[in-house]
Amino acid sequence: MSHPPQNDNNPRELIPELCREFYRLGWATGTGGGISIKQDGIYYVAPSGVQKERIRPEDVFELDERQEVRTGSCPVRAGLKISECTPLFFNAYRMRNAGACLHSHSQHVVLVSMLCDKEFRISHIEMIKGIQNAETKKALGYRDTLVVPIIENTDFEKDLTASMAACMEAYPQTNAVLVRRHGIYVWGDTWQKAKGMAECLEYLMELAIRMKQLGLPWTPEEK
Amino acid sequence: MSHPPQNDNNPRELIPELCREFYRLGWATGTGGGISIKQDGIYYVAPSGVQKERIRPEDVFELDERQEVRTGSCPVRAGLKISECTPLFFNAYRMRNAGACLHSHSQHVVLVSMLCDKEFRISHIEMIKGIQNAETKKALGYRDTLVVPIIENTDFEKDLTASMAACMEAYPQTNAVLVRRHGIYVWGDTWQKAKGMAECLEYLMELAIRMKQLGLPWTPEEK
Amino acid sequence: MSHPPQNDNNPRELIPELCREFYRLGWATGTGGGISIKQDGIYYVAPSGVQKERIRPEDVFELDERQEVRTGSCPVRAGLKISECTPLFFNAYRMRNAGACLHSHSQHVVLVSMLCDKEFRISHIEMIKGIQNAETKKALGYRDTLVVPIIENTDFEKDLTASMAACMEAYPQTNAVLVRRHGIYVWGDTWQKAKGMAECLEYLMELAIRMKQLGLPWTPEEK
Amino acid sequence: MSHPPQNDNNPRELIPELCREFYRLGWATGTGGGISIKQDGIYYVAPSGVQKERIRPEDVFELDERQEVRTGSCPVRAGLKISECTPLFFNAYRMRNAGACLHSHSQHVVLVSMLCDKEFRISHIEMIKGIQNAETKKALGYRDTLVVPIIENTDFEKDLTASMAACMEAYPQTNAVLVRRHGIYVWGDTWQKAKGMAECLEYLMELAIRMKQLGLPWTPEEK
Repeated sequence: MSHPPQNDNNPRELIPELCREFYRLGWATGTGGGISIKQDGIYYVAPSGVQKERIRPEDVFELDERQEVRTGSCPVRAGLKISECTPLFFNAYRMRNAGACLHSHSQHVVLVSMLCDKEFRISHIEMIKGIQNAETKKALGYRDTLVVPIIENTDFEKDLTASMAACMEAYPQTNAVLVRRHGIYVWGDTWQKAKGMAECLEYLMELAIRMKQLGLPWTPEEK
Repeated sequence: MSHPPQNDNNPRELIPELCREFYRLGWATGTGGGISIKQDGIYYVAPSGVQKERIRPEDVFELDERQEVRTGSCPVRAGLKISECTPLFFNAYRMRNAGACLHSHSQHVVLVSMLCDKEFRISHIEMIKGIQNAETKKALGYRDTLVVPIIENTDFEKDLTASMAACMEAYPQTNAVLVRRHGIYVWGDTWQKAKGMAECLEYLMELAIRMKQLGLPWTPEEK
Repeated sequence: MSHPPQNDNNPRELIPELCREFYRLGWATGTGGGISIKQDGIYYVAPSGVQKERIRPEDVFELDERQEVRTGSCPVRAGLKISECTPLFFNAYRMRNAGACLHSHSQHVVLVSMLCDKEFRISHIEMIKGIQNAETKKALGYRDTLVVPIIENTDFEKDLTASMAACMEAYPQTNAVLVRRHGIYVWGDTWQKAKGMAECLEYLMELAIRMKQLGLPWTPEEK
Repeated sequence: MSHPPQNDNNPRELIPELCREFYRLGWATGTGGGISIKQDGIYYVAPSGVQKERIRPEDVFELDERQEVRTGSCPVRAGLKISECTPLFFNAYRMRNAGACLHSHSQHVVLVSMLCDKEFRISHIEMIKGIQNAETKKALGYRDTLVVPIIENTDFEKDLTASMAACMEAYPQTNAVLVRRHGIYVWGDTWQKAKGMAECLEYLMELAIRMKQLGLPWTPEEK
């Protein structure tokens, strides 16, 4: 029951810490999942294919806006490669001017993606108010219907880049894109907002699975 | 496996610690949920819309009995706002002379609120004995039926104030009010009693959901 | 990821530590549950009605073999009372010469007690081998059927004393007694054995609930 | 939220740490489960029948390639015995030149073993890409079908040695063998790969149980 950490403004400390938390939540086991944070024009990205709960501050890559390792940034451990999610994180940076983007393999998210067609829709749950409308920057209301679009999975993560971008254009109000049988990408103006919305989406999708098992509809129209 | 904390008598330390625990329990993710404690005539309240697991002692507001920030209390970080639950916490302070009141978004609580009409009722479970009758201050018995009333959710948290108060008048024996599709408010004479009863209610509602899935009735009458 | 604690031989340190672990496991929330350990002729017992995850070493009672507070033992905090489970723990000390006895309110245990009549029976699961036959002190085999007897709950915990004792006489091979809609008592020659068997029983009952939901029988005979 | 440990290259520190983590995950409760690591020609193995979350560095055995305690290795605490899984871990060392092998009693794994006949098969889930083909050392693709063979349980752990070896010969591409109603063995070239694949397999089997409960097929052919 120690005090909360004080590294909120240092992405090199914060990314390993958040990855450990995402591992504990089941969002980033088996080396999957991760987070990227932008600060002072630098894009911080975790390495690929490593145990996300054991990343060290010196393992974090610093990229520039062309997705290339910054000249003069700390050299990372031999053998480490940049996260394969990088071009997808940059969709959020380029198209939405995001401050952070995270990727989760949560099982609730994956199950929801198998139960829906093109969109996940839910309404009349208090936690919906934790999600912003990406266009107006206003919080959704309790009676609003949250809509999260779904794209199809591909053989390689980077091949999702174009379909994710097309989906973001088609859904200008969304802060998240589901990838069928794979996971979810969530972004926000700050890492706090990205994480907070990811927690609300995780909550809503876990609740939706339980509602399905109890025969409760996700929206008033559904019945 | 460190020793338990020794901050039981300092609400500025205790509120952040309990909020971290509630986050871990799934009661306060996505910035939702929280707790307020009264001590020596001061009402301590967590800030609104922040990550509840990262509140610091200096983030806690001190209010007077009119729900206004106390003159001379520590200034809080710029941008922090008082929890929107404040008028609901004060229902418990004013109408029941409570020493603490907490709010949880637990999924089990939300599911129970969708499965019931006006009340949640359960009987013949040992953990019912952890709940007090708010009028007599005596613990319920194993054969008693625990009744928790449910109010309808509103668009804004503060708009629950009047209906929660009316519900508390209609149910003088209850220490908790369920808010449909939203969560629960629980209070007690001390923070220990409020937390203990919240844990018993959480346990009973999680158990009730599992009983429903196994076809087991919640009371002998139900069948 | 600190080193494991080194207090294995000091019941005053060990009981608070194990209670915190049982709280985390959902065995001892809402002030329920607990553990007693015997060492050098002294019976160590946790206090009643307090938050089990916040017990301090100085809160632990020392009893003699007549269940009375030992003369000369440390005085405990004003207001603390001995666990109501004490006479039940002493059933295990007197009738089985146990070294420790624990009590859990686990939901899986409570659900199993509602699904069975007089006994819980399961067979052909590897973890059954973690349970001893209390008469022969030998481990059960994979093909053996584990039998855990169930007694009816009463209004007051102490009123379980006689029926638990009668059950222990009727089932000389058991190290555990289920209390319907309430929880379980588990004991062993040492605290390590009591805890290890409690974990195996918890595992087997949680698995049994999941098997029931998937339509899988608990024993070959059941079908 | 401490920094990750720095003992990745010291099996005496790493095995107790990983066992604590496996305990927390439900893979190694009730003294079951465990892990062995090979380094510099020494085979490190945890002791048998002890609480896996409380192993200390000095409790770890050092074996040679004949499975005998190394001359000159630290003496272990009196009464400790080598893990009964040792001959099964050595199947992975001998037949696959593994760097580590772990054993889990996860309930999801046990449930899958009861729902399948000779093999567990799943396809079109992103996390399949975390599993290697043991022959080609290449990662499986998203559209590949992961196949994990199942052997029957025996009365004594060591009696699984021959059937596990035969299964490994029959399935040269697998890094894991399921033991019906018991658990799973998973190995890899390094402890990081063994642990990473174990997490992916755990994820896939937990997801499969949830898919079954929601009526979702595990492969496109199944329907």
